[in-house]
Amino acid sequence: MIRVGINGYGTIGKRVADAVRAQPDMAVVGVAKTRPNHEAQTAIRNGFDLYAAIEERKPRFGEAGIKLAGDVDELVDASDVVVDACPSGVGAQNADMYREHDTPALLQGGESADVVDSSFNARANYDTVEGDDLVRVVSCNTTGLSRLVAPLRERYGIEKVRATLVRRGGDPAQTGRGPINDILPNPVSLPSHHGPDVNTIFPELAIDTLGLKVPATLMHTHSVNVTLESEPAAAEVRALLADERRTFVIPEWLGIDGAGAIKELAQDAGRPRADVWENCIWGESISMEGRDLYLFQAIHQESDVVPENVDAIRAVLGTTSQAESVATTDEAMGLDEPLA
Amino acid sequence: MIRVGINGYGTIGKRVADAVRAQPDMAVVGVAKTRPNHEAQTAIRNGFDLYAAIEERKPRFGEAGIKLAGDVDELVDASDVVVDACPSGVGAQNADMYREHDTPALLQGGESADVVDSSFNARANYDTVEGDDLVRVVSCNTTGLSRLVAPLRERYGIEKVRATLVRRGGDPAQTGRGPINDILPNPVSLPSHHGPDVNTIFPELAIDTLGLKVPATLMHTHSVNVTLESEPAAAEVRALLADERRTFVIPEWLGIDGAGAIKELAQDAGRPRADVWENCIWGESISMEGRDLYLFQAIHQESDVVPENVDAIRAVLGTTSQAESVATTDEAMGLDEPLA
Amino acid sequence: MIRVGINGYGTIGKRVADAVRAQPDMAVVGVAKTRPNHEAQTAIRNGFDLYAAIEERKPRFGEAGIKLAGDVDELVDASDVVVDACPSGVGAQNADMYREHDTPALLQGGESADVVDSSFNARANYDTVEGDDLVRVVSCNTTGLSRLVAPLRERYGIEKVRATLVRRGGDPAQTGRGPINDILPNPVSLPSHHGPDVNTIFPELAIDTLGLKVPATLMHTHSVNVTLESEPAAAEVRALLADERRTFVIPEWLGIDGAGAIKELAQDAGRPRADVWENCIWGESISMEGRDLYLFQAIHQESDVVPENVDAIRAVLGTTSQAESVATTDEAMGLDEPLA
Amino acid sequence: MIRVGINGYGTIGKRVADAVRAQPDMAVVGVAKTRPNHEAQTAIRNGFDLYAAIEERKPRFGEAGIKLAGDVDELVDASDVVVDACPSGVGAQNADMYREHDTPALLQGGESADVVDSSFNARANYDTVEGDDLVRVVSCNTTGLSRLVAPLRERYGIEKVRATLVRRGGDPAQTGRGPINDILPNPVSLPSHHGPDVNTIFPELAIDTLGLKVPATLMHTHSVNVTLESEPAAAEVRALLADERRTFVIPEWLGIDGAGAIKELAQDAGRPRADVWENCIWGESISMEGRDLYLFQAIHQESDVVPENVDAIRAVLGTTSQAESVATTDEAMGLDEPLA
Repeated sequence: MIRVGINGYGTIGKRVADAVRAQPDMAVVGVAKTRPNHEAQTAIRNGFDLYAAIEERKPRFGEAGIKLAGDVDELVDASDVVVDACPSGVGAQNADMYREHDTPALLQGGESADVVDSSFNARANYDTVEGDDLVRVVSCNTTGLSRLVAPLRERYGIEKVRATLVRRGGDPAQTGRGPINDILPNPVSLPSHHGPDVNTIFPELAIDTLGLKVPATLMHTHSVNVTLESEPAAAEVRALLADERRTFVIPEWLGIDGAGAIKELAQDAGRPRADVWENCIWGESISMEGRDLYLFQAIHQESDVVPENVDAIRAVLGTTSQAESVATTDEAMGLDEPLA
Repeated sequence: MIRVGINGYGTIGKRVADAVRAQPDMAVVGVAKTRPNHEAQTAIRNGFDLYAAIEERKPRFGEAGIKLAGDVDELVDASDVVVDACPSGVGAQNADMYREHDTPALLQGGESADVVDSSFNARANYDTVEGDDLVRVVSCNTTGLSRLVAPLRERYGIEKVRATLVRRGGDPAQTGRGPINDILPNPVSLPSHHGPDVNTIFPELAIDTLGLKVPATLMHTHSVNVTLESEPAAAEVRALLADERRTFVIPEWLGIDGAGAIKELAQDAGRPRADVWENCIWGESISMEGRDLYLFQAIHQESDVVPENVDAIRAVLGTTSQAESVATTDEAMGLDEPLA
Repeated sequence: MIRVGINGYGTIGKRVADAVRAQPDMAVVGVAKTRPNHEAQTAIRNGFDLYAAIEERKPRFGEAGIKLAGDVDELVDASDVVVDACPSGVGAQNADMYREHDTPALLQGGESADVVDSSFNARANYDTVEGDDLVRVVSCNTTGLSRLVAPLRERYGIEKVRATLVRRGGDPAQTGRGPINDILPNPVSLPSHHGPDVNTIFPELAIDTLGLKVPATLMHTHSVNVTLESEPAAAEVRALLADERRTFVIPEWLGIDGAGAIKELAQDAGRPRADVWENCIWGESISMEGRDLYLFQAIHQESDVVPENVDAIRAVLGTTSQAESVATTDEAMGLDEPLA
Repeated sequence: MIRVGINGYGTIGKRVADAVRAQPDMAVVGVAKTRPNHEAQTAIRNGFDLYAAIEERKPRFGEAGIKLAGDVDELVDASDVVVDACPSGVGAQNADMYREHDTPALLQGGESADVVDSSFNARANYDTVEGDDLVRVVSCNTTGLSRLVAPLRERYGIEKVRATLVRRGGDPAQTGRGPINDILPNPVSLPSHHGPDVNTIFPELAIDTLGLKVPATLMHTHSVNVTLESEPAAAEVRALLADERRTFVIPEWLGIDGAGAIKELAQDAGRPRADVWENCIWGESISMEGRDLYLFQAIHQESDVVPENVDAIRAVLGTTSQAESVATTDEAMGLDEPLA
């Protein structure tokens, strides 16, 4: 059994904890939190040992009647690998601690690529991170683009990717975030930083990205153009993408018009937290104009990186092959049961 | 075992089907649908026999590769009771069919009170509907108000209720509904029809209501004033409401600021479809000014009537007492496990 | 001519500057800004002399090619009265400066009532502030409630006011404010601070208020209950409110369903910045149940206090009567031309 | 003086009426309406003669106390040219009437290109429509793209345009339109119809477009890629676009982050109805990657076609040159005064 510690138990951490626990070859050592808030209680209710991320704040847990299993140091020490799911920037601050304990750690996509030894996507570069100390599981948007780029590149070759990322303004419970009624170029300067982030996975890829923020909370939506090096029929591309593991090519007859309907599918399918781990690509949208492929895909910002974190655990330790890891992860999580 | 047919398998119907199946004393005979859409497939995937609600459309199901168990007539015939979860107005049209088959039926709150023999809320008038042919389970908002009124009335007496219902514009997947950026008095004429609807449960209650619609999809929020006949301390009222079965008095330390955070609790608690069956009453908001009680509560429009439908099945057939029914329903659904 | 200085040239300040300039008995000495941003340029384009609000930042204006007329001290000195339209909290910090210069100043409703000598609403207490050093023009919501309370109280007597304020989350250009998709009790503790603020204008009034925040930007909407001391017909109340100067009782035939339609009326009427200075009360909503009056009104948070600031200038200096001031203000601004 | 009749007095019609009246060489004969609603009253208040668009409904105007100048037939007869600003599809139905009266007519972009003799954009093809019976002023989005394409094509040559149109879900007062909280690929099939519409202006242009709908009301936003035939510096492109008449290249120092801030500029500039007639192109966003130009532009759906309609009047009658018409239109409307 791989002993996994999880540092940070928020949007990503709590999902990774559940996904890791579901794996046949892994066990959760515990989760670390900075404060005894309601997520700390959720961790305990779910049976995870709780560690204090900040030593000075340990007494607060006691005051809140929450029993601690120890310090984050002890968690790191007891783990074969740590998934760091702390807020952006904190992961980088934790890097020294992981190195000191000689425990490999996975950081999230909000950290800078400069902080880590490598960036990771299970579909694209599973085999390149074994033995690294610090591996970054790329962001939700980069994960979504990488899953799309990998098969297209292998099968048809890619001349250039141009993608507009229409991003949700905040997650459903992030009520302090806007905009309420606007469409914001964000960042205004072009091309956006998302393209270079995809290059951490595909260094040679020609890709330009543009980002916007809109008043929606459920999923990001990508408007994608890929100029291919050959000219397949749209139906062929559709079949190629439908064949991939972590893509869901939305059939037309479902009448899915947006993220609300996708989340409803996930609810009806009994997915935990109504999570949508796959790229959701509208089948009707997949079209070819000459060598220009166009399509729309929706990306669930809260969960698409979760199976990637699970795979990264095996990849960094080198315990199994890519094919075996991905199959195991998906079966254990229920990702291999289609959304509809 | 009570054999339950479900006519309509949309937002309410699919939830009621799952809740009924979970009961120890009930079995789902099948569900009826008008069209072979993706919800029809969900029904089949979930193991429910499918019946055609409209005879002429039966061939369409065959064309879509969906096997039917029969017509809605046969479903009604094979059922001890039918839950009608069709769109507003269709339930009334179905009333004759239920009468012809001599099968008691539950209509939903979108139907007019004139169509039915009685209106139902499990907390308030469980014992009054036994033997009725047509019973209306009142709407999400009326259910939410009834659960609040019942204990206050019993304990303190109520002089008058004044409530402003700040309603969500549409459900998460209803993308054709607005407003996008407005606050709409709705209905503009006052008092609104919601008060008289509460009077179908509490005929003598003095209640005036006002309704608005806003650009939100998750839950309704009620701003409530109740002028009591006595003057309890706020803490006493808080305890009274916390003691009720289908209320969740939100503790202050959770830091819950709105419906997004409540839904996140439901997700973390593993609730199916992240449903919130309880009235969610902000504990901090419960306050007394003289005999005037004030509070805020959030109501999940998609699910708070689901346990009520389950209880109404037993109530109309007279199989068990109110206390036993409610306890059984809640345990079977997991409603008795607190949200946090 | 009354010489008026305006400290702060943002949402309120720029509107007050235009309104003051339009008055036959007033002149704008100049406006003060902290930074040479685009509003500073707007001030110059509109022909207002610009003063630096913060001495150390004066060089920045020069660098931006913007010519200054002097320091804010000089502006205060050259003014008979100053309208302070700085962000909430800054007005209180400026109070000493105004006192030192012996220049009466008007602060805005975001400042605490403790900082000032008196609070002001033109309809309700014009005659009480003459000679005061610091007068607070109450907030948009309190102004809207005061205009409603004054005539009702005079004509019918008021037993109690209960009002739910459904507030816009942010102004149209405040893209950093949320919520995107939620209804937030705000503040959660009840009753809200809005009631005590109305008591700065009507000290003896019994009033309880509740506030919420929703994802809309155009106007606030008030759901109002007033228990009167007598029992007039609704039509009589409608006529009373229609007769007031700064109320617009929306006729039913206009089909106005929300703030978007109201703002469209203001645009079509050629109002500057599509401002809506009046309380917009839905005529259909005005209704009586016993002695309980109910109604909905929409309040334009960016502009309803603008005519109040103009009147407060005359009131604090004692130059004219209430009736004359209000008539002059409204005619000069175009407020006396009805919206439709 | 060119006598102009305006059939339809809604969002576009009322703006065109004001813009035509402001021209030195035009006079408004009158406006036609189907119903005596509040816009009919606005027309009268603004001094426009009112004609009944539907004969059977004439009595309704009398009942509403609104005096008619005649039937729409008479309006068409008395006009040298008619601007048809009726809802989409109605313009096509009116086409026969215009032909019968031998009165040239301008339809709006919601009509099919098949119905008309030609499509029009003042910048791109002013000289091609003289003498046509029916001319279509292309839609807001197509107008916005045409203004961008024309100078780029002339100066650098265009290999291909790829544009993602992030469209507002509805106008500010269209409260029945959604979505409330979603990002909708719309249309789902790609490429969208917008590209072929641009081809009615530039028949040979290679252009693929993608459309989405989001919960915003103020402006559309275009994410644009243009592969040029040469490789100018970004600064050169910026200067080229800034030099155009109906573009506003937003300077970085203004700190404009979205449509809310743009509309605020228009309000502060005293624009009627806060209209933004120009393409608003973020200066910072204009960038070159090889021969790939990228930029963001915002388009005000309610008003950018208004000056185009004015020019189309002169173009179809052949009264002046393009340069003279555009200069006259812009000066008369105030479009030549910059937004900031």
